[in-house]
Amino acid sequence: MNKEPLSIRRILGGFFLLLAMFLSPVAQAQTLRGTGDLGIVIERVTGEVLIVETTHQTILGKVSGLGDLSHATAVFSRDERYAYVFGRDGGLTKIDLLKGKMVKRVMQSGNSIGGAISQDGRLIAASNYTPGGVKIFDADTLALVADIPAFYGNKGKRSKVIGLVDAPGQRFVFTLYDAGEIWITDMRHPAKPKIIKFKNIGRLPYDGLITPNGRYYIAGLFGEDGMALLDLWHPDAGIKRILPHYGRGEKKMPVYKMPHLEGWTKAGNQLFVPAVGHHEVLIINANTWREAGRIAVHGQPIFVMARPDDRQVWVNFAHPLNDTVQVIDVPSRKIIKTLKPGKAILHMAFTPRGEQIWISARDSNRVDIYDTASMTLVKTLPAHAPSGIFFSARAHKIGL
Amino acid sequence: MNKEPLSIRRILGGFFLLLAMFLSPVAQAQTLRGTGDLGIVIERVTGEVLIVETTHQTILGKVSGLGDLSHATAVFSRDERYAYVFGRDGGLTKIDLLKGKMVKRVMQSGNSIGGAISQDGRLIAASNYTPGGVKIFDADTLALVADIPAFYGNKGKRSKVIGLVDAPGQRFVFTLYDAGEIWITDMRHPAKPKIIKFKNIGRLPYDGLITPNGRYYIAGLFGEDGMALLDLWHPDAGIKRILPHYGRGEKKMPVYKMPHLEGWTKAGNQLFVPAVGHHEVLIINANTWREAGRIAVHGQPIFVMARPDDRQVWVNFAHPLNDTVQVIDVPSRKIIKTLKPGKAILHMAFTPRGEQIWISARDSNRVDIYDTASMTLVKTLPAHAPSGIFFSARAHKIGL
Repeated sequence: MNKEPLSIRRILGGFFLLLAMFLSPVAQAQTLRGTGDLGIVIERVTGEVLIVETTHQTILGKVSGLGDLSHATAVFSRDERYAYVFGRDGGLTKIDLLKGKMVKRVMQSGNSIGGAISQDGRLIAASNYTPGGVKIFDADTLALVADIPAFYGNKGKRSKVIGLVDAPGQRFVFTLYDAGEIWITDMRHPAKPKIIKFKNIGRLPYDGLITPNGRYYIAGLFGEDGMALLDLWHPDAGIKRILPHYGRGEKKMPVYKMPHLEGWTKAGNQLFVPAVGHHEVLIINANTWREAGRIAVHGQPIFVMARPDDRQVWVNFAHPLNDTVQVIDVPSRKIIKTLKPGKAILHMAFTPRGEQIWISARDSNRVDIYDTASMTLVKTLPAHAPSGIFFSARAHKIGL
Repeated sequence: MNKEPLSIRRILGGFFLLLAMFLSPVAQAQTLRGTGDLGIVIERVTGEVLIVETTHQTILGKVSGLGDLSHATAVFSRDERYAYVFGRDGGLTKIDLLKGKMVKRVMQSGNSIGGAISQDGRLIAASNYTPGGVKIFDADTLALVADIPAFYGNKGKRSKVIGLVDAPGQRFVFTLYDAGEIWITDMRHPAKPKIIKFKNIGRLPYDGLITPNGRYYIAGLFGEDGMALLDLWHPDAGIKRILPHYGRGEKKMPVYKMPHLEGWTKAGNQLFVPAVGHHEVLIINANTWREAGRIAVHGQPIFVMARPDDRQVWVNFAHPLNDTVQVIDVPSRKIIKTLKPGKAILHMAFTPRGEQIWISARDSNRVDIYDTASMTLVKTLPAHAPSGIFFSARAHKIGL
């Protein structure tokens, strides 16, 4: 009688041990959920990322150890489960949004400025300042697939690379800042990238964008006025210079912060564009590529973003006027709302169908969520010095 | 000594019972996966639905018991986890794509023709023939939220409802076939739907569509030539009649199958439209709403679908020429490929970024997957008399 209870205790012990083992997957099973409403918020000071969801507007988790996240951007896997975060320090980090943890992190360069994911979702490309070039990785493993140094001229120099985007046909398009060149890389055969180079596109291109259908690639120039346009349906036609009056202008206005061309936006046939160094949003006719109007705004615009239904354009501004967001009504071209959401408004992101917009107020340590129909605050989430906000729906879009 | 082993056996029995209980969630944990690459294929003869994924192009599961699925369509929850399938018999079925099973099914009418999901994802609307009207359900529970009978005239008659779509601002737009009316329902306050009615839009409207940005709603007319256009940004301007020569024409060509207006497609500023009763695809200028050209094709077009980058338009055809798919190159307006993918090509769906297209060949019992750049077959999946193919990325789109 003395032995048996012990044996029962042992059995019970083993039982609870096994129970504990299975409880862990059970906890995991609770995270069984869709990923179409997920997103991340960059906390750049601490090198952390918040995982958020837009259905109930909550924070699901936090991932640490991402290094220098100033100017960080992100793309998402085609199943919307993984985020790939490009840090300023050259770190490329793959995050599992469902498990709320880092899957893999590689230091792929010394200084990086953004990235893209291929049309089929199998390749991740990062554009680098130091050493200048583009590196392309396997999206599953982050193993290096191709290294494309941005050599130019005949002295073996490497250029900084900016304005990297994906384009249909498994291509990446990017711009060489120092060289003044645009390159198209065809990655249909990853071991043998095919590169087409366009030279003399203009002086000091500082950023590039691609239209939402992936047809037109445009580089902005810092060294002179005007922009460089490439029609990817007709690359043989070469570079066309457009908007000769777009730029810093004769007066060489001080530019507090270069606007992001990714912040350009297409609403119908019109592009809404931050005017460099001016308190204006420019409207460009996307058929003729000529200026079609200007809207006076609060400050130097940084991000100029169209609501997914094209009806509104939301604008934030450069320091020191960065406490303000303005909303433009597209058909009337009038400012219909001026909001003061907080201190240092760095970024904005619309929910996929545009009913809400998330706004990061870095120096107020929060993310504000607005209803876009009423333009009123719906909810506030705490965040530590938030900057970029990226939703998983980007996975389904061309050129992000 | 005789009693104790029994007690141990009992404990062991309880242990294995509990183990089995926990093994079930463990199996569930294995299905932890993203939902951005999921989709469904309708097997209409057996009332079943295949769950598929587009990353590795595989079938993940099958759900049975969905009733009459002829003409079935589907929308997806904003997290891309759930599909809502609208059956012809009035059945509305909510499917959990992750668990591969039915969550809920309601018989919401006697005869139904499609549905939509609200901008915020909280409401599901179904358009019904019998009894004529629209019913609106809570997306979580499928509980009835609003019942909108389509009464018209002064004799208490109810009209069949067709062309139901969602529009920005938490609205649904739909058309009354017998009444010749278009209604807008504002569901911002679900308990108090606000309805605006547009009367005398034309005789026997047979289907409706909304442009991808949710601005223009267009109804096709079976009873006369021309179409009815409503600008949802300016509803006060009322209905405008457009395309006076669009329709069956003077000769009243036999129409084997009414084209789906959902199959209309916008590529840049152009709409590509199946010509009713003719072997032609019409091109409409979306600025002027005038005809901008015609392309001779193999048969009477049914679905006319633009690849997400607008470069190609894929077309399938009505019986008896429904063994063919043609690909139009948008800039040259030329047919660049004629494919014979199988017998009775009923539907097509592009992957979100357009690198592949899935094609259902009903009478060949398979779904064929083509690479859209090379227009070659990549893979074939077995399916029992497949019809509609719907991918979860629809969740992020307006008007689906």
